[in-house]
Amino acid sequence: MAKHTTLYQHGTLALLVPGLLRGTMTMGDLLKHGDTGIGTGEGLDGELIILDGKPYQVDGDGNVNIVPDSFTMPFANIHYARYSPLAESENVSQDDLDEQIVSLSKAGNTFFSIKITGSFSDVKTRAVRKSEPPFHTLAQTARHQNVFTRDKVKGTLIGYYSPELFDGAAVAGFHNHFLSDDHKFGGHLLDFHLEKGEVSYQLFDTLEQHLPVNDDQYMTHDFSTDNIADTIHSAEG
Amino acid sequence: MAKHTTLYQHGTLALLVPGLLRGTMTMGDLLKHGDTGIGTGEGLDGELIILDGKPYQVDGDGNVNIVPDSFTMPFANIHYARYSPLAESENVSQDDLDEQIVSLSKAGNTFFSIKITGSFSDVKTRAVRKSEPPFHTLAQTARHQNVFTRDKVKGTLIGYYSPELFDGAAVAGFHNHFLSDDHKFGGHLLDFHLEKGEVSYQLFDTLEQHLPVNDDQYMTHDFSTDNIADTIHSAEG
Repeated sequence: MAKHTTLYQHGTLALLVPGLLRGTMTMGDLLKHGDTGIGTGEGLDGELIILDGKPYQVDGDGNVNIVPDSFTMPFANIHYARYSPLAESENVSQDDLDEQIVSLSKAGNTFFSIKITGSFSDVKTRAVRKSEPPFHTLAQTARHQNVFTRDKVKGTLIGYYSPELFDGAAVAGFHNHFLSDDHKFGGHLLDFHLEKGEVSYQLFDTLEQHLPVNDDQYMTHDFSTDNIADTIHSAEG
Repeated sequence: MAKHTTLYQHGTLALLVPGLLRGTMTMGDLLKHGDTGIGTGEGLDGELIILDGKPYQVDGDGNVNIVPDSFTMPFANIHYARYSPLAESENVSQDDLDEQIVSLSKAGNTFFSIKITGSFSDVKTRAVRKSEPPFHTLAQTARHQNVFTRDKVKGTLIGYYSPELFDGAAVAGFHNHFLSDDHKFGGHLLDFHLEKGEVSYQLFDTLEQHLPVNDDQYMTHDFSTDNIADTIHSAEG
């Protein structure tokens, strides 16, 4: 069923905005939809990166853990990896690399994933500390984040690109997570410079968008007063 | 694979706005994803309603045809029907009925389908006349529509409700098509009054959004200058 061209998404970033941070899918269930991905835990419990079917969490203290199948999430992206080489890049900033990738892939109007392995410098990541219920808004919760930096580090970037048309459901543009080769550093990427790396990509023709319809808080929430777009771009930028 | 809780969508309404009206999926392929649905043909060639696996088209002259598997579409919704009874309604306007359905179903934050069978009055539908390439914008093409009316008619309404969060990808709110029991009248519903009917609904936890990634015109289009939201709401209202 063309599983390599489908991106599975549980939840939407928009539902995090008003603080719908309850974990509504387990990692065990998520892993039935792919072997590569990113996400966050209940209460924004750290930043997740899934590589070769292994779910790594960078927690709010910057520690890298493997989470159990029972770990729950309000939001995640996952797919079955089959990346194609796009470029070998050297000495390029994040912004320039983003532009090059959209240009080379010619895929700016659909969803795709990128994987970059190599040597990075001036890497800045963040990970949020888990909140307990009752949850606050995304903006308030995201204040409890720590920022981590590395001057030089080898590792893997997994990212998803969403087209502008789906802004809200996803974050338009790139959403990138990182894990170092030594598994001692990672998180949601805020900034980086790619020293030298292999850039590969995987194009999707299908977004399989799953919503937490069994969660009463989600189903009864009034989204009309949430300033979704502005909050997402300030929290995820 | 929980197929009764998945809504399949080919294309998005947003891509119709700038005139990306090429047929990018055949009816034969669409019918692999369900037995009940709505859509439009290449160049906005009429209004489609799929009932029990049969694809009916109301063309720009108001004639009802069955289209072949080779018929192509830029946009369609389809799913496998398993509706649950929601209400038996009498003497209610479209707007009041919409409110009642959202209230009773408690499903306003997810995608769902409605099916209404019964007696309708003051029914107003429209169907667009097919355009040939090069296609014009949705607003220009939609001017070539005919409006059809019936004082009293028995028939079936198939509709999809999309939550506000996905406005653009879908049309937020209801998108309803109609076919009379005698197969002589139908189209995209602009207005109606329900005299007496059975209202049923089917809730989805998954939107399977398929994009026409093999269509160069779609993949290379610059959506940034299209006024997507406003145009959809004036054309589909």
